[in-house]
Amino acid sequence: MKMKKSVLVVLSGGQDSTTCLHWALSRFEEVHAVTFDYGQRHRLEVEAAKEIGKKAGVKSHTLLPLDVLKAIGDSALIEGSQTPLQGEGGRADTAMPQGLPTSFVPGRNLLFLSAAGALAVKLGCETLVTGVCQTDYSGYPDCREEFIKALEVALCLAMPSSSPIRIETPLMHLSKKESVELAVSLEGCLESLALSVTCYNGLRPGCGTCPACVLRAKGFEEAGIPDPQNNLQS
Amino acid sequence: MKMKKSVLVVLSGGQDSTTCLHWALSRFEEVHAVTFDYGQRHRLEVEAAKEIGKKAGVKSHTLLPLDVLKAIGDSALIEGSQTPLQGEGGRADTAMPQGLPTSFVPGRNLLFLSAAGALAVKLGCETLVTGVCQTDYSGYPDCREEFIKALEVALCLAMPSSSPIRIETPLMHLSKKESVELAVSLEGCLESLALSVTCYNGLRPGCGTCPACVLRAKGFEEAGIPDPQNNLQS
Repeated sequence: MKMKKSVLVVLSGGQDSTTCLHWALSRFEEVHAVTFDYGQRHRLEVEAAKEIGKKAGVKSHTLLPLDVLKAIGDSALIEGSQTPLQGEGGRADTAMPQGLPTSFVPGRNLLFLSAAGALAVKLGCETLVTGVCQTDYSGYPDCREEFIKALEVALCLAMPSSSPIRIETPLMHLSKKESVELAVSLEGCLESLALSVTCYNGLRPGCGTCPACVLRAKGFEEAGIPDPQNNLQS
Repeated sequence: MKMKKSVLVVLSGGQDSTTCLHWALSRFEEVHAVTFDYGQRHRLEVEAAKEIGKKAGVKSHTLLPLDVLKAIGDSALIEGSQTPLQGEGGRADTAMPQGLPTSFVPGRNLLFLSAAGALAVKLGCETLVTGVCQTDYSGYPDCREEFIKALEVALCLAMPSSSPIRIETPLMHLSKKESVELAVSLEGCLESLALSVTCYNGLRPGCGTCPACVLRAKGFEEAGIPDPQNNLQS
């Protein structure tokens, strides 16, 4: 039975957030989505998020501008910079010697989730869902569960007491294989994953050789099912 | 003796943040400022912040775009809306019957401080200073000390462990009279306050009749000193 509560899902258009969207659809009556436009190098990510939200029938889908990220950082996934190393949801697949990927934008998830929290209150959603995952953690402090728990407290204190916000992170402790298995169990999720963008080179289907494509392929392979994206005509 | 550490001050161009800037100048060797451009109704506020930072000789002054606020909320201080009711630093002077001012943008300070925290890490600042004040609290949850303390924890967890961030709030428990007394004790602060913008109608000197002007006048009157702004030619 679904909970009669509404939820806002942070939907980047990647594999993890798409899985989270369908996880939310399976549990909540009213599902809203938010996608951030922060000058992503590949516009296909934002377009994919729109397609996925529309196909899944979300109640509303908000595109929020977040140019402050571009102004603060020199993220590798942001226009004008050179080395695309960071996956969706702040997950890092390649670490620098110092322990942080070259694409590191300090507090990136903090900004995403703060803005999403404010939008959730405006929309009347009690729950926020994000695809962050500390299993593949390689230096992003704001993907760890302890950060999410602390932010949940700060979010609740920042908002009117009539609007407490819970943050749900269904993928936090899953491996890529387990994420794929979860996706298989969720209605319509594989069809949406066909539309998701994982590739660092902004291709759909992906290039197959960048670290993000390799990680995605490994997850599907270990779960023993074909990636639905490979059936797409590019 | 000044601490040999660097600090980032959130400088809106209003009375409170200007006082905080001089408080920081009296205590830290290296003072940086950040001002948010979120589509303020009165551009003079941003211009005043620039003038104040330049005159005070800050090490750097960053203007960060935050158009996400405009997208999320219908704040009275944001272009296109009608009722200017919210003062600087999230302070509210007029409350709605439900307890929250009409200008309420949920999580406004959370967004400001999250972005400022990320910039602080990029600049190598260990401390963040904000003029929030719960003395005049009339419904903004994110002006309370308990929120600031929770955010400090979340900020530290979001950033690399080599970059812990402290949040200082010198005005948190001061009345407007005490804020003025603090300003009097700080070198150059009254000169800067002459340049600050308090008025809801975006005037400098202020209109004298809006709630913000009335509150400012009361503070100077109770402290027994003339407002330096009243010597300005408008």
